[in-house]
Amino acid sequence: MPGTARIVTLLTDFGEQDHYVAAMKGVMLSINPNLIFVDITHQIPPQDIQSGAFSIGQAYAYFPGETIHVAVVDPGVGTERKALVVRAGEQFFVAPDNGILSYVLDKEPEARVYEVTADHYFRKPISATFQGRDVFAPVAGWLSRDIHLDQFGAAYEQPVRLAVPRLAKLKGNLIQAAVLAVDRFGNLITNLTPADLPPFGAPGDKGCKLLAAHREITVFRRTFAEGSPGELFVVPGSTGYLEIVIRNGSAAATLSLGPGAMIGVVLS
Amino acid sequence: MPGTARIVTLLTDFGEQDHYVAAMKGVMLSINPNLIFVDITHQIPPQDIQSGAFSIGQAYAYFPGETIHVAVVDPGVGTERKALVVRAGEQFFVAPDNGILSYVLDKEPEARVYEVTADHYFRKPISATFQGRDVFAPVAGWLSRDIHLDQFGAAYEQPVRLAVPRLAKLKGNLIQAAVLAVDRFGNLITNLTPADLPPFGAPGDKGCKLLAAHREITVFRRTFAEGSPGELFVVPGSTGYLEIVIRNGSAAATLSLGPGAMIGVVLS
Amino acid sequence: MPGTARIVTLLTDFGEQDHYVAAMKGVMLSINPNLIFVDITHQIPPQDIQSGAFSIGQAYAYFPGETIHVAVVDPGVGTERKALVVRAGEQFFVAPDNGILSYVLDKEPEARVYEVTADHYFRKPISATFQGRDVFAPVAGWLSRDIHLDQFGAAYEQPVRLAVPRLAKLKGNLIQAAVLAVDRFGNLITNLTPADLPPFGAPGDKGCKLLAAHREITVFRRTFAEGSPGELFVVPGSTGYLEIVIRNGSAAATLSLGPGAMIGVVLS
Repeated sequence: MPGTARIVTLLTDFGEQDHYVAAMKGVMLSINPNLIFVDITHQIPPQDIQSGAFSIGQAYAYFPGETIHVAVVDPGVGTERKALVVRAGEQFFVAPDNGILSYVLDKEPEARVYEVTADHYFRKPISATFQGRDVFAPVAGWLSRDIHLDQFGAAYEQPVRLAVPRLAKLKGNLIQAAVLAVDRFGNLITNLTPADLPPFGAPGDKGCKLLAAHREITVFRRTFAEGSPGELFVVPGSTGYLEIVIRNGSAAATLSLGPGAMIGVVLS
Repeated sequence: MPGTARIVTLLTDFGEQDHYVAAMKGVMLSINPNLIFVDITHQIPPQDIQSGAFSIGQAYAYFPGETIHVAVVDPGVGTERKALVVRAGEQFFVAPDNGILSYVLDKEPEARVYEVTADHYFRKPISATFQGRDVFAPVAGWLSRDIHLDQFGAAYEQPVRLAVPRLAKLKGNLIQAAVLAVDRFGNLITNLTPADLPPFGAPGDKGCKLLAAHREITVFRRTFAEGSPGELFVVPGSTGYLEIVIRNGSAAATLSLGPGAMIGVVLS
Repeated sequence: MPGTARIVTLLTDFGEQDHYVAAMKGVMLSINPNLIFVDITHQIPPQDIQSGAFSIGQAYAYFPGETIHVAVVDPGVGTERKALVVRAGEQFFVAPDNGILSYVLDKEPEARVYEVTADHYFRKPISATFQGRDVFAPVAGWLSRDIHLDQFGAAYEQPVRLAVPRLAKLKGNLIQAAVLAVDRFGNLITNLTPADLPPFGAPGDKGCKLLAAHREITVFRRTFAEGSPGELFVVPGSTGYLEIVIRNGSAAATLSLGPGAMIGVVLS
């Protein structure tokens, strides 16, 4: 097994108390012992494809070319849902065809998608309840040994795509935005970018306000440290999106909002 | 330190908030920097040897030959309990002699067990409260550098064995089974296999039922996705055992059952 | 990228549900794919620099020379707080200048500290809210490729130092001690060492007692297994410090004590 180690990331909803993730890693190492694993997260809420899609969509671009990303949130395991391998952004993705790659495909319009049908690459017998171990892990293992994409199956044009929440222009100076995700700190990651709110960051900016859970948020800051105690404010988050936050507190808990919640924007 | 990287898995009850697991890894890397770590889990409930035994017993077989498994759930740390190295299934195991290898030894009757007494392989001074760091990690580190098993100590014939719950045939068509483990999703992993319930999976199967917490479970399905909302049913789990589950819910919480609980089986 | 793999440890307060830690690892692997990551913990309570300082201060010494430790608990992210690289104990440290290296600097008086100002090593654009990814990870990545410390910036003499709790001799035979940390098991790690209580461990020792939360603790034991059910007692912990513990229970919960709590010691 000569050559450079290959990087494989894993994202699942399997949690960390069971041996399921380790089983996937063991299967991959049995095919190629020269792997570097990076866990993106295993704490996606059970069966929450939208949350998994956001997370892999945020994480992949930080990795070097040829990284293999394995993303398994798979409520349809054992049914007719397809398995996919994808070449996008000089990286590889292995995942069920249920929308978990929606953000990746959104960002990578040149992506090439293949349906995995060559079951001689699978682990046998194939469990009807854990194909992370029996389908996705071995496919990733063989991919790391430079099996070509079209060896796994035919090109596939219609992968499942989730509705990625878009901004909607309402009448007048109103925009409807949404919460894409909540992070560990309770920060509400919206689908707004600084470019959507042109006056953002200008001196003495009173250009706009956000409406969330019957609260008006009018304070825009550059860092967490600038926040006053208890104050709800907006910062440009590390994902490129604006976040509604409270310094040393949870905006999600304070507003009782989570992924999918609607946010109003009133431009100046 | 030439040659291939060695794979070392870790299973403990140390959790992930403290530096204890990292200390073990640092000790091993100081002996052999050419290691690939895979964490099986560090969320075994504190001191729960039975749970740790189940977990390592499920996980090890997915790993390639020569993998070294370090399993430390160690309520007897600092007492006279022995330390073991084991050769089984072409792999290695390093663990306290308290039953944590019971499932492994059950599955690998050819296993060779050694008591570790050669304390020049230990980290000094040896803590009376953290021998994961001072005994098990360095032994695993030296094992990865091809120190032969009998250099650590003498063969040992009587390792502690936990009672692995067995099926019991009761009178008539009754079997007494047990819950072996509960996973993150609340699925109840039993000690029944599909082969124990011959009609399982047959068309229109009404061959048998399970009795658990005063409930009768008569529905057998192949996948989670086939379950109706709120329905308790049985699926063949990925461990090879039958599991009592609820789609998108927790059978363990619904039935208030956990490891060790008894399950009745009424054959047709 | 020839040569040996470099070991990089990570300690943050980012938790494990988001992609933040993976983003840092991806950035480092993009600079040097030949890295072995060890997570010390990502469960430092949000913004709790003292807890992070204790944890990295306990963990680093187990690692081999040339290990790079990245410690990011960073409430001042985006402000004027400096970024540091440190050479200490034959290892490297990359961290914000906020006291998180206090225990390391305390133990390593020969440490050399540099302020990181060479922003061509940073990831651009630099987020004002996530410099773990944009400053500390890339600096660690370049450090692993043997960029010399003084290439990152000038020597720096006044890093922020937290008050590491010291023992205080009160009148007579009284000492004031403190709880440094609470571990997963609820053990209270104090700043007392066995050497501070000379009779500790002697046969029939009644040399001293501890006062904590209006309770007198007079029992000193060598191992957890020697404890009686429900009994509060003192053991020499694996960190070198004495710990107040309950076998199979949480001393922290029983006494409602946490980091920073004061402990009284009455010598004989």
